[in-house]
Amino acid sequence: MNTAAIAHIHIKKVNAAVVTDAEDFLAAEEPLEIKLIHGPSHNRQQQSLTVTMRTPGHDEELATGFLFTEGIIRSVADITNIRQISGTLPGSNVIQVTLREQVTPELKTTQRNFLATSSCGMCGKAGIDAILTGVKKQEVSSPFLFPAALLHRIPGTLQAAQQIFENTGGLHAAALFNTDGTLLLMREDIGRHNAVDKIIGASLDTAATVLSRCLLLLSGRAGFELIQKAAMAGIPIIAAVGAPSSMAVKMAQEWDITLIGFLREQRFNIYSGAERITF
Amino acid sequence: MNTAAIAHIHIKKVNAAVVTDAEDFLAAEEPLEIKLIHGPSHNRQQQSLTVTMRTPGHDEELATGFLFTEGIIRSVADITNIRQISGTLPGSNVIQVTLREQVTPELKTTQRNFLATSSCGMCGKAGIDAILTGVKKQEVSSPFLFPAALLHRIPGTLQAAQQIFENTGGLHAAALFNTDGTLLLMREDIGRHNAVDKIIGASLDTAATVLSRCLLLLSGRAGFELIQKAAMAGIPIIAAVGAPSSMAVKMAQEWDITLIGFLREQRFNIYSGAERITF
Repeated sequence: MNTAAIAHIHIKKVNAAVVTDAEDFLAAEEPLEIKLIHGPSHNRQQQSLTVTMRTPGHDEELATGFLFTEGIIRSVADITNIRQISGTLPGSNVIQVTLREQVTPELKTTQRNFLATSSCGMCGKAGIDAILTGVKKQEVSSPFLFPAALLHRIPGTLQAAQQIFENTGGLHAAALFNTDGTLLLMREDIGRHNAVDKIIGASLDTAATVLSRCLLLLSGRAGFELIQKAAMAGIPIIAAVGAPSSMAVKMAQEWDITLIGFLREQRFNIYSGAERITF
Repeated sequence: MNTAAIAHIHIKKVNAAVVTDAEDFLAAEEPLEIKLIHGPSHNRQQQSLTVTMRTPGHDEELATGFLFTEGIIRSVADITNIRQISGTLPGSNVIQVTLREQVTPELKTTQRNFLATSSCGMCGKAGIDAILTGVKKQEVSSPFLFPAALLHRIPGTLQAAQQIFENTGGLHAAALFNTDGTLLLMREDIGRHNAVDKIIGASLDTAATVLSRCLLLLSGRAGFELIQKAAMAGIPIIAAVGAPSSMAVKMAQEWDITLIGFLREQRFNIYSGAERITF
């Protein structure tokens, strides 16, 4: 277990008017600054790209996934080095990503020097028209299928795998499943967009997890920023235990992503791409 | 009921492998651009301050609350006019806020031209050090007390008052209660920070709701950005049905705000300011 992900505090527990002092565990929420070094050798540049509020752990995966799902890099091979460096502010963590000299990062649609909270995956976008950039429709044209009978089981599989949530009650989880309903990878974070970035960042450079043949399960609601991240990674099916937003449905329809919501033991709703679910 | 807050769509409902076509309702999530007109008469300026993803409805309250809780204005009296104007992009809404000529908006800690998602209340802040700006400790020194016995009842009161959630399952609610446990005001939004901004924006210019003598109830988790907004408005007690984050607790302790989490029928946790809860 990643102990940095949990903060220990002293609280008062109240149960039917009985007050007791107790030790409690909270999901840790700490800033991570992502710095980028890029440009040709005669003009190397270093810039602070974002500060994201995240649950510590898997920070390199988070940075990799963020750069990829935001369209700043097109391949994990663009990265030559990625490492933690010390921050200037107390308690802050900084991760420094170095790109190959030949790579020009796509920074036009990304506002620089912004702060992303744990609950936000779109911070710093310069305007409404920046939302839809970056996703090419062919990226999510996977013929991957998933059986309805297995859909009902995967929330239970995810819950059994969640380590931090049981302690803190405060974390979102994201997980990848293959067509057999096998859990391939799970990540937890106080920010649902961070959990998805960690999953995608961890999967880009491994042949074991081919994202175009995976289902992405979300423990909570499906916001449109998560649909966009999944689309960038070519994930064809997204299933959420909670509700989707109207814009999430619109985007999933636009990009031919299968979107499932309200996934429970006996029922679920299909908002788009029903042809990928088999009965 | 605010019908613009609900989007109607056609879905497939699956229940124990039986698939039916159905009409469904989703929480609407649409962009709202907030524009600010300010400056002395010889040098009036218009600027786009933010684009926030919100559930339509109570947009003037949202804009007022956003400007106040972000510290951009210090009083609702700074505003001389606030109105919807037509947007340039299809489906976009724009609200234009005009400030008195004598007022200088505090824009230093606010990144301009950023997009805030429905799940984020801190978008565009320029760095970690910008998080804590604006709140003065004396603003939350209210001696307001709240009985523990009433705490257990208020989530039920809120749930009974929620109109949109029952239809969509996708909305956060925020509500103000007085010391008698009476619900004074309730707002729903797909973004929890928007629900809080709407509540605060609606309360600033009415003598009926004195925020320093209110409890703020949150239907979900307590993120640190909500603590900051409540602190800016001088709200002394925040109770959340869900978990707080570690940073939310840290900020509540710092600012002498009473923070309750995991509020259920029989139990709750006190994370800070226990002296305001009476038994």
